[in-house]
Amino acid sequence: MSDIQHRPGAMPSSDNCPLFHPPCAPCKNAEYFFFSSSDLLPAKNGEEPTMQFLLEVMDILTNYVRKTFDRSTKVLDFHHPHQLLEGMEGFNLELSDQPESLEQILVDCRDTLKYGVRTGHPRFFNQLSSGLDIIGLAGEWLTSTANTNMFTYEIAPVFVLMEQLTLKKMREMIGWPNGEELISFPLTGGAISNMYSVMVARYKYFPEVKTKGMSAAPRLVLFTSEHSHYSITKAGAALGFGKENVILLSTDESERPLICFMDAVLLMVLGGCVSWQGYHPLFVNATAGTTVYGAFDPINEIADICEKYNLWLHVDGAWGGGLLMSRQHRHKLNGVERANSVTWNPHKMMGVPLQCSAILVREKGILQGCNSMCAGYLFQPDKQYDVTYDTGDKAIQCGRHVDIFKFWLMWKAKGTTGFEEHIDRCLELSEYLYNKIKDREGYEMVFEGQPQHTNVCFWYIPPGLRDMPPGDERRERLHKVAPKIKAMMMESGTTMVGYQPQGNKVNFFRMVVSNHAVTRSDIDFLIDEIERLGNDL
Amino acid sequence: MSDIQHRPGAMPSSDNCPLFHPPCAPCKNAEYFFFSSSDLLPAKNGEEPTMQFLLEVMDILTNYVRKTFDRSTKVLDFHHPHQLLEGMEGFNLELSDQPESLEQILVDCRDTLKYGVRTGHPRFFNQLSSGLDIIGLAGEWLTSTANTNMFTYEIAPVFVLMEQLTLKKMREMIGWPNGEELISFPLTGGAISNMYSVMVARYKYFPEVKTKGMSAAPRLVLFTSEHSHYSITKAGAALGFGKENVILLSTDESERPLICFMDAVLLMVLGGCVSWQGYHPLFVNATAGTTVYGAFDPINEIADICEKYNLWLHVDGAWGGGLLMSRQHRHKLNGVERANSVTWNPHKMMGVPLQCSAILVREKGILQGCNSMCAGYLFQPDKQYDVTYDTGDKAIQCGRHVDIFKFWLMWKAKGTTGFEEHIDRCLELSEYLYNKIKDREGYEMVFEGQPQHTNVCFWYIPPGLRDMPPGDERRERLHKVAPKIKAMMMESGTTMVGYQPQGNKVNFFRMVVSNHAVTRSDIDFLIDEIERLGNDL
Repeated sequence: MSDIQHRPGAMPSSDNCPLFHPPCAPCKNAEYFFFSSSDLLPAKNGEEPTMQFLLEVMDILTNYVRKTFDRSTKVLDFHHPHQLLEGMEGFNLELSDQPESLEQILVDCRDTLKYGVRTGHPRFFNQLSSGLDIIGLAGEWLTSTANTNMFTYEIAPVFVLMEQLTLKKMREMIGWPNGEELISFPLTGGAISNMYSVMVARYKYFPEVKTKGMSAAPRLVLFTSEHSHYSITKAGAALGFGKENVILLSTDESERPLICFMDAVLLMVLGGCVSWQGYHPLFVNATAGTTVYGAFDPINEIADICEKYNLWLHVDGAWGGGLLMSRQHRHKLNGVERANSVTWNPHKMMGVPLQCSAILVREKGILQGCNSMCAGYLFQPDKQYDVTYDTGDKAIQCGRHVDIFKFWLMWKAKGTTGFEEHIDRCLELSEYLYNKIKDREGYEMVFEGQPQHTNVCFWYIPPGLRDMPPGDERRERLHKVAPKIKAMMMESGTTMVGYQPQGNKVNFFRMVVSNHAVTRSDIDFLIDEIERLGNDL
Repeated sequence: MSDIQHRPGAMPSSDNCPLFHPPCAPCKNAEYFFFSSSDLLPAKNGEEPTMQFLLEVMDILTNYVRKTFDRSTKVLDFHHPHQLLEGMEGFNLELSDQPESLEQILVDCRDTLKYGVRTGHPRFFNQLSSGLDIIGLAGEWLTSTANTNMFTYEIAPVFVLMEQLTLKKMREMIGWPNGEELISFPLTGGAISNMYSVMVARYKYFPEVKTKGMSAAPRLVLFTSEHSHYSITKAGAALGFGKENVILLSTDESERPLICFMDAVLLMVLGGCVSWQGYHPLFVNATAGTTVYGAFDPINEIADICEKYNLWLHVDGAWGGGLLMSRQHRHKLNGVERANSVTWNPHKMMGVPLQCSAILVREKGILQGCNSMCAGYLFQPDKQYDVTYDTGDKAIQCGRHVDIFKFWLMWKAKGTTGFEEHIDRCLELSEYLYNKIKDREGYEMVFEGQPQHTNVCFWYIPPGLRDMPPGDERRERLHKVAPKIKAMMMESGTTMVGYQPQGNKVNFFRMVVSNHAVTRSDIDFLIDEIERLGNDL
């Protein structure tokens, strides 16, 4: 500590201050915050300031965690962009040439959390991903500390094996036998997972496209329902198929695709007139849990068509895949084992911290074949260990973040049964909400019948609109209700829930539950809040 | 605490145990580890066990951080995959149906770190990304705790603004005036950044491909040097151009592309014979810092060609972009301001924790145009704030991890000058290594002259090979030297450095420095270690 003690107001010596848990009071009061980041490790004598700084950060984070679960804390403290940009009482987002003190860095950390949104709060219902799982959080902290990359066993031995074992369990859940004909691969984000599925399908049927480009294939067509995630169309645009070659199938009132229509299209294309505008059907996406309604496409019926016409079947279970963990609800994905590939995001329904998304492909070797470029500088064949554990060449990414550890650790801590309980509980809460409002005055449900997932979609009709006759004026006024209520919710910071229009339906609320902190009282609170804020609209 | 106290061996009451920093000794000895994850928040009375658990995790992590910087600690404790899979003394990677105790979870955390690789160790030279920045680490911990998503201002207000301001600084470094004609966008991984550049270039010149697919464009060709990152070819394969339409330009001995050859090809294609096999040149990638040699393509010369023929110029500065922060070294990227897009990975040369990568595009609006799908459920136009801050529709991803905070926080803490010092120091250390071995007995340099980046590439020639005449036998034996030394290094755990063959060159070591903990003594150690292990080969 000799260097440090020469500074004015430096810390007491380590003899009388055991800095590790906690800095004692005199030490905290000492002016060690004259220190800057250059005094931290690897600086000479940097160990004590480093430990002290990290403990201060930890104190900020644990306080945040505690408050996140405290219902008397606001979900957010809303400010407009210009307000935050102008600077809030000592919170200046601008970067400068000169370093700032560690004291200021800690203030910045506090303020960053203060003006953010508590996505783990029991009254945050805004996204499919919500909640703050403590084990998952610990897993993320450890992952950051290990700071490594998934591309080789060489630098991520434990994580690579954890990934392999976790994906094996996921494949078992899907119903793919645990044989050598299976391979799978995780990456960040359901949209990229879906993009992989399209690439792999193209490689399976037209491997020459990898070398020669799209001109080596006929005009390939992808099918998906009009309510599927937009990433399928985005993948079509990005990968060179073109948006207009992504055919959006009509759906019934509950967002499920009209199979008869689909079948008819396919028959038309593949039956009598293969050259119908030169189209060649390649790929069908079935959604297990649509984003807005939470609807499940009938996988078995779609699989029948795919098998009949030799098409790639992808199941986008980004949102609904989690239901595979529940004996009560997994039937909604019946037929998933017949898919060629599956997207499944543990960071949505299973409460794993962002991000954690998997693409699972049934046929072994095809991801490798599709994406490998054999970069010799990274994937040397003459390493001393079994290099089949080097997975980087299967990805379109080069580096790949360690997204597995938090998930593996949560699975260890909860067991499969813990995930099942979580999922069953979230669906029960949604059922509670559905039953509460389906006949309540001032509410209209957006689709008929009980939701298949936790998505409950509804209009709140303020008293002033309840007696209005149907028509354009009512529609226009109703369209403005959800945005107005949402804006007031955000201003008051009490709760957050999503809304959107869809097709010819004006703005409606989409309520989802994936946060394990939510109770019935929070559902009641949301409804009370909507009525409080919307009563005078 | 009432529930908890009914358990056998439960914790003392909170009156006599201030659980926050630290759990007192009796409390640590209490058998609270009979607890499982279901006793943590949001469980009733879960706050104290949660805080205690997180402090235990923190203790594990801070110990790991301390040891990472301690040179008496090994870089790794190597085990083969089958050894780890069989289970190491209580470390069982298999997942089960039933939950495990928190005690076991903490053991798993310790073991995960124990059998991993210390990428922050001063003697880890294996990858372009290395080091453990304490401020960056704190930033990652906070990011995990905030657990949100970048796609809208609504749920990530502070992070969205930090990203905007940080990218503005990066654009200033590139030399793009800070006007409204600029836009930029960060994402994970240089390979994906490069893929974006190809997509955006295609959209700029052939926007109809988005809708109609690749058949709406002529046969498009991408140019890059044979030593550029393989992600350019991978992007060509994935996006439907085809690998054979990615033309790899020859390079000189220092990995810089032979511009005259390139110019000739382009002239041939664009000059007299536009329809040369129907090719249409679209895109040229100039690498600023190749992966193996660290070579910088001459951007100005390439830009001249691109301007002449109206081609998109991308600069892949994933590895070399950091040098823009250094007044001494930024001249190596002269001309970068003439690029249409730039990849720059702060997680490489700037020491930001994994992952943090940016794609910067000069023309405003083009990323949005290229990727937007206008998903109404996410990007509602009728929000109460300025929705131009909702950036999700510019990405091919839907969800996007918060990679900005750690970088922003490091910039705050170090200032621009701190990054400059870091980069200058790493380059000085490489110069030290180069000067140390360039004339040393038993070493041969792979390329002539001083390295442009921190990459020093060399063969170590064991005494037994020094007198062998050039020829196949010597080549074969030399090819095995680096893998053997590397394997022994890993078995002994003392240091790690990369090797690879390239072209007709047999395996050689590639030494890189990006870790701020490295000193000259560590460079000396590496050389001593290579000689110790390689002496008898």
